[in-house]
This record gives sequence, C-alpha cells and structure tokens, in this order.
Amino acid sequence: MWKPDRQSKQPLYEQIADHLERRISYGEFPPGSLLPSERKLAEQLGVNRSTVVQSFAELRSMGIIESRTGSGTRVSKYKWGITPKHTPNWSRYAEGGSFLPNQPFMRRIRKALTEHPSLIDFASGELSKDLSPIDEITTLLNEPQSISYLGYDNPQGYTPLRQALVSYLRDYRGIQTTESSILITSGSQQSLYLITQCLLSPGDAVAIEDPSYCYSLPMFQSAGLRLFRLPVDQDGARPEDIRTLYKKHRIKMVFINPNFQNPTGTVLKAEQRIQLLNIASELGLPIVEDDPFSLTAYKETPPSPLKSIDSTGSILHIGSFSKIAASGLRIGWMVAPHTIVERLADARQQMDFGLSVIPQQVAAQFLKSPYVEPHLDRLRMNLLFRRDLLIEALEKELPGLVCYTIPQGGLHMWCKLVPKVHDGKLLEEAIKNGVVFVPGSVYGSDSGFVRFTFARPQVEEISSGVSKFAKALQNLTNNRRE
Amino acid sequence: MWKPDRQSKQPLYEQIADHLERRISYGEFPPGSLLPSERKLAEQLGVNRSTVVQSFAELRSMGIIESRTGSGTRVSKYKWGITPKHTPNWSRYAEGGSFLPNQPFMRRIRKALTEHPSLIDFASGELSKDLSPIDEITTLLNEPQSISYLGYDNPQGYTPLRQALVSYLRDYRGIQTTESSILITSGSQQSLYLITQCLLSPGDAVAIEDPSYCYSLPMFQSAGLRLFRLPVDQDGARPEDIRTLYKKHRIKMVFINPNFQNPTGTVLKAEQRIQLLNIASELGLPIVEDDPFSLTAYKETPPSPLKSIDSTGSILHIGSFSKIAASGLRIGWMVAPHTIVERLADARQQMDFGLSVIPQQVAAQFLKSPYVEPHLDRLRMNLLFRRDLLIEALEKELPGLVCYTIPQGGLHMWCKLVPKVHDGKLLEEAIKNGVVFVPGSVYGSDSGFVRFTFARPQVEEISSGVSKFAKALQNLTNNRRE
Ligand SMILES: Cc1ncc(COP(=O)(O)O)c(C=O)c1O
Ligand SMILES: Cc1ncc(COP(=O)(O)O)c(C=O)c1O
Repeated sequence: MWKPDRQSKQPLYEQIADHLERRISYGEFPPGSLLPSERKLAEQLGVNRSTVVQSFAELRSMGIIESRTGSGTRVSKYKWGITPKHTPNWSRYAEGGSFLPNQPFMRRIRKALTEHPSLIDFASGELSKDLSPIDEITTLLNEPQSISYLGYDNPQGYTPLRQALVSYLRDYRGIQTTESSILITSGSQQSLYLITQCLLSPGDAVAIEDPSYCYSLPMFQSAGLRLFRLPVDQDGARPEDIRTLYKKHRIKMVFINPNFQNPTGTVLKAEQRIQLLNIASELGLPIVEDDPFSLTAYKETPPSPLKSIDSTGSILHIGSFSKIAASGLRIGWMVAPHTIVERLADARQQMDFGLSVIPQQVAAQFLKSPYVEPHLDRLRMNLLFRRDLLIEALEKELPGLVCYTIPQGGLHMWCKLVPKVHDGKLLEEAIKNGVVFVPGSVYGSDSGFVRFTFARPQVEEISSGVSKFAKALQNLTNNRRE
Repeated sequence: MWKPDRQSKQPLYEQIADHLERRISYGEFPPGSLLPSERKLAEQLGVNRSTVVQSFAELRSMGIIESRTGSGTRVSKYKWGITPKHTPNWSRYAEGGSFLPNQPFMRRIRKALTEHPSLIDFASGELSKDLSPIDEITTLLNEPQSISYLGYDNPQGYTPLRQALVSYLRDYRGIQTTESSILITSGSQQSLYLITQCLLSPGDAVAIEDPSYCYSLPMFQSAGLRLFRLPVDQDGARPEDIRTLYKKHRIKMVFINPNFQNPTGTVLKAEQRIQLLNIASELGLPIVEDDPFSLTAYKETPPSPLKSIDSTGSILHIGSFSKIAASGLRIGWMVAPHTIVERLADARQQMDFGLSVIPQQVAAQFLKSPYVEPHLDRLRMNLLFRRDLLIEALEKELPGLVCYTIPQGGLHMWCKLVPKVHDGKLLEEAIKNGVVFVPGSVYGSDSGFVRFTFARPQVEEISSGVSKFAKALQNLTNNRRE
C-alpha cells in the first residue's frame, strides 16, 4: 500500500493530495463515489488526521472533491468532463450478488493486521513462517526445474500430483484410492466451496458442528443453505444428533472436522466414528470429512480418517497442505466417488479453469522428496512447544480467568473466559493493546470463548501476546466495575 | 489415466477386472452406482470391446457387479457388507446446485482430446507449447529463487505482481492505475466469474456480444442472468444496440471483448468505442472489457483498451497471460474502481483464499525480465505465419466452401461453411477423421460456423488438419446426397 515519503521535501499533505488526485483521475474513485473518511485515511497512511484534513482542503479547493456534513467526502461529478456524466453506481453493484461479505470480526481482524503489522497475531489460523518447510521448498525450487507443459491442464488437477497423493494418502492416512478419484483444489476452502455450490441447492438443510470453522464462512449462507447444529463436546459431535436432524429437517449433508477440530481441538471418539458411519449409510447421507490437522498430532499416532473405514462410499474426504506445510501453496484435495469428482471438475472449469501447474509441480516434488517425514517431526515438536508456552502464559497472566481442554494436535487453543465480556469490545481493546485473536462467536452460537492460534506468532511473542491480552481483558472488566 | 499394461503376462481382461475391483473397493464406484458402459470403457482403455465384456463377466461371476439389460452395469449392493447398506445417491447430488454443466460440445471435445491425444487440435483456445515462453520461464525458475512468505496472502493478490502490472499496464496498454485497484485472479475466467457471481443477482439482464466466448460459458446461465445479444459485425458491436437493450430490458452490465474478439477476430471500430463510452456514461452502465488478445496484433500497434479512455470509471478491465504467454500459469487481473476490487477480494476469500504465491512470483519476475518484448515479437510473427498457413490450407482443401474475414490478431479464425451441415454430426465426423474444432453454435445463435484455433496445433499439423476436416465435411455432404 502506498504511504507518503517522510524523507521527501514535499509536505505530507501535498503528497497525499497528489496521490488521491492520481487515483481519482485513474478512475479508482469514480465521480460521485465516496472517499474513505479522514480518520480512516489517516490511520491507513500512518499520519495525523489534521494532515488528511489539509489534503482534503487542497483537493476541495481544486474542485476535485466535495464534502457535505453527514454524508462524507465525494469525488466531484462536475470537474471530470464537460457535461455532467453518470458513473455506474458502483456501491450498489458491490451489494449485488448472492455473496455475503465476510464476517465483520474477520474483516476487522484482517484490517487491523494490514494496518498494524506489528500486532501479535493469535488470529490467523496458520503456521508461522519458521514452521513452514520454506527452506525445503526453496531447495526444491532451486533444483533444476523443467516445465514440460503450461497449457490448460486436466481440470481434476496435475496428474503427477494426484499420483503422488495416492501414495501419500495410503502411507500417511490409510486411504486407498486412485488418481481418478482425486480432485486438486485451492486448499480445503475450494473443496468446501465446490461442494456447497455444486452438490447442494438453496434451501437444502445441512448439519455442521457447533462450534465450527464453517460458521466463520459466510459461504454456507451465501449458498442459501439452512444450517443445523451438531453440538461438539469433549468427544466430538454425537452421531445420534444426526439422526434427529435428519428426521426433523431432512438434512442432505453433514460437515465434520473429526480430528483436532477447529476451533475446539477435539478428536471424535472411536466408537462415535463407527456409529457415525453406520447412521450415514443407514440414511444414505453423505458426510464431508474436513481433515487438515491430523498430521500435527503432537505425540500420538494421528487419528485415522473416517474415509479409511468408509465401506459404503459415504465420505467426501478433504485434505490440504495449509496446516501441515504452507497455506500460501494453496494446495488441497478431495477424495470422492467418481461421479462427484467428475461433476466438480467440470464445474470448476467455469470458475477458474483449474490451478496453476507450477505450485502443483512443487507440491508433487515435495511429496516425493525425503523432506516430508523430518518436516512433520519438526512441526509436531514445535507445535507442542508452543502449545505449552501458551498454557504457561495463560496460567501466569490469567490465573482462574480461562478454562480450556489441552489439545493434542492442531494449531489452536479454545478458551472459555470466566469474566463475562463483550466479544467485540474485547477485540477492540486487544487491538489497542497490540494483540489479535478470534472471538469465539465467529465459530457458532456460544459466546464467551476465544480462539488462540499458537502456531502463528513467533515463539518469543507468545507470552507477551498473552500479557497484552490479559491487559485488555482487565481494562474491560475494570471499566465495567467503575 | 490408468491403462492396462500390454507387456504384462497377466491377460488384459484380468488386469482390467482387477483395476475395476480395486476402484470399487476404494469407494470410487460405491455400491449401486453405474459403471461406464462396455463401449466407453473399451474406448478409454484403448482395448477391444470384447476384452471389457470379458472383464465384466469376471466381476459378475464374483458378485461384484450386476448387469440388467437396458439399465447398464451397476456395482452390486450385497457384496459389500453383511446387511444391505445405503450409499448416498451420488448421481442425484451431482445434479444439485445451481451450476449448470459445461456445454455438451465442449465436454465432447475435451473427452475426445483426453481419449485420443493424437487428434489435431483446432479446438483448444490457447497457444501451443512452442509459442509459450516456457524456456524463459524455466530460466527464471532456475535462477536462485527465494521465498520470503508462504502464508495466506493479501486477497487482492501478491503485491510485487500488482506493482509489476502497474508498469506493464501503463507501458503496454496505456492504462494508468495503482496497485490498490488491481485484483489478481485465476485467469480472465475467474474475473468473469467473480463479476457474474458477486456484482449481479439472479434475474439481472446483461448484454453480451453475439457470437461471443461468453456463450460457451454456462457461467452466465448458472448465475441466473438473462442474456441479451449485441450482434457483432465487421466493426464490432453497435453501441446503439446497447441503448435499445437498456430501454427494453434495463440491462445492468455489458460484456465486451473489443480487440480481436473471440471467436470472430473483430476489432471494435474507433468511433464505436467513443460512442460506447458515451452511452455507458449516459446510462451509468458498467462495461466489462475482456481484453486477452490485444498484444497478439500481428503487424499493427495493438488496439488501445477502452479503459485507457474511460473518464467516468465505467469500465472493469480484464487481462490475462493466457493468450500471450501460457494458460497454465493461471494469472489474470482486473482493473476496477476501489469499491469493486475490495468487494471481489473479500468474496474470493470464501472461494479459494486467493492464488498460490509461487506462480504470482514467477509472473512478476517474467514481467520485470528482459524477455517480455522479444517473446511478444516472436509470438506475433509466429501467429501470423500460422494464420497464413491456415488460410493457404483452407483455400487449397476447401475452395469455395468457406468464407472468412482475415484476422489481424488473436488465435482464432472464424469461418462460415457454405454447405449446410449439422454442427454435431460434423464434429463427430471430424473426430473420426482425426481433427477437432469448435462448432460455431457454441458461441451463440448463428449456426453453420466453425472456429479454428491456429495457435494450438503444431505448424506441421495445420495443413493435414484442414485436409482431415475437408474429408469429414465431404463425407457428410456426400452422404446427404445419397
Ligand atoms: C477446518 C478447516 N477447514 C478448512 C480450512 C481452509 O484452509 P485451506 O483452504 O487453506 O486448506 C481451514 C482453515 O483455517 C480449517 O481450519
Ligand atoms: C475472450 C476470452 N475471455 C476469457 C478467457 C478465459 O481465459 P483465461 O481464464 O485463461 O484468461 C478466454 C479463453 O478462451 C477468452 O477467449
């Protein structure tokens, strides 16, 4: 993002006025459109509000913008062209479509992180740079690369990657499949998107866990689905609840994240898995198994996927490199019956014509390299270390103020706050104090929870991050008492 | 795709039976699901139908599959599990969703190309391998690469790529913009998809050219849009038609491919551009300018984009590397007002969390390299050469049987056939004779046209491809006379 140059001789307000004039003349802010507020711009550009006030005054004096009290500052319609012209009402268009915007809390967090990169980040659900196999991938990239094809590829995904995944799924996840039944997607996210868009119709009822990562995704509501809750306790979701929902609402699909669930860290109990599969096959009900975390199991063997014991072909199994290697690779996959893979591969042609061959080639090389096992070992050890650092910090900084179950895998810790505080206020106060987290309400119906992702901050940030969080919590609870 | 091993001692039919049994046991063909027909399988596996008949007999004798006359061969429900279990009705699910499947002709072509890779390909709208800068990209990849970040990236796209595009758009396309107004997408395709999904609502009326690439995309119908035609003649679409459509149907957006239009190769006339922009701004109507071909202009300077003379911010400008570098990179971009870029970046988070950093890094390196200009020169020269080869072959093989306007840029040649033949029959006959093309009806309402992509086949295939096509045409017209 552009920032004014503090070394330059040109005054800041002039630089900003020039920059805005340029963007207006390029059509980025068309005639009649609303500019960001003075306060917002000042925050984005890292200057005093008074500087922006001066820049706006400058642009106003040139007739480029107009301000009216209460309705903000707009680009003038008359300056640009001899006769008054109409510009499309872009903000109306931006409200169109069936796509709901992202969760306000998620947008707020993203914005805070963009504007203040120094915030300690317990919010982004991913690995920190040093936990990703960046060196390994760089080494692979620096081996002589040859590209044999750069045309439109098979819409199911790059064949050598699908072949490598057949071995990977067999060796690491106990899943037997062939390359014809694998669809490569842009992370698990695109697998979920394809399922909700192409296999379900608006009005269909589906069951999702509560709390669940899925609630953070307006994707489900955008697709017009009716969502029903499967409460998650220490042993995961209760399969009997599925039968009840089926009877009541004719649910058409179940979304489940059985291993180190996001956000709770829960592992679905072995008996419940069998029961779940029995109910699914009894009802002819498809289950989407979203399984990105299993290989992070800190000490035990990773839990087996439902897919590995699915004898009726009821499971759509989704995996990803995001949580065990790097989210910026954007490589995920789905293992599904042939009809479904064909249908989704066909539909995705209309959306993006498939993924770039290059990261798929890198991912295939990584899978075939000797780096996978050592990387996973290192990852597990480091995650465990960070989890313990987080627990230590919570015990020190927030004694008696948080409850949690200690997760045995995954990137997150799900904490119930003992003091009652307002989700949004706590987030704002935390941002002020230099730390972000995800308010639990993003993941479903219960409030008073917080998700801390301990995989994302630097090791040395964990304890100071918690202390900043504690400060924020204290500020709020103190204020309330006053 | 799996094929039986002809070197193996195990008989072909047994290998096929084993392979099918494995896939059935993996759940790829769940109990009760339909297997491909014997004829289809034989074609896919490159064996005689009688071999597949034998494999099916083998599987039937083991109780794994069941055939019933008239309803095909299904996986047995009773073999797998002690009690009969239900498998989700996957084919019903595959029919769900608002996503229409791809055009039957397009599916047919893709299938033919997968099964018979030796077909001469006048159908795929892309560059052949030797026209893509694969060597240049390989060289760049083989320079020491460093990856500094592999996390979830800015949803607008990798910043260095957006920065490189600012210079590229200025130098090559005369477009002034800043990185804040660029959205990186998976080719132009995803830009179109985001626009139809997020800025328009079901029931909205839009105008598209006729013929147009857009008609080949069920994307528009999937979004529930009502499509209205802007007939394209030698000078492109007539802007006055837009006013008429607006009055009649309140169209909300216009999609246009003004430079070397796909499929006709037409360039929108200069006067009509000004008129178009005037009408757009008069009506406050947004125009989507899909501009992938301009830099292929064989001899003249590439036509300027509408965006470069858009003073009211009415244009959403879409570009891509697919037609000037390599479609497998999957890198495209949109230049749009700020509000729109923000909205689409937010929505695409729900679909795929953005593109992989790696191809974006490669694309940025390519743009900053000294390779762009020489590559484009070579590309233009080669396209011109191929275009002339195609014309020569058409004149020789089909004298008086085709009419066309000679394109001055782009990858395609749009030909009207003088003899009246059935689109689908001609395609089948062509496939039999070893060549594929796209039937003109895929692009809109007029029939009796054919699109030949001369950029895709090898140079030495062009004349033999046309002669195979001529043979197919002759077979059909002769048959008819009998
Ligand atoms: C349970 C779960 N599923 C899917 C995703 C999407 O991740 P990706 O698309 O990067 O694989 C996430 C990311 O947070 C997740 O936690
Ligand atoms: C006019 C036009 N627009 C868009 C596309 C989509 O191409 P891509 O997504 O590869 O940029 C094509 C491809 O054929 C095209 O011809």
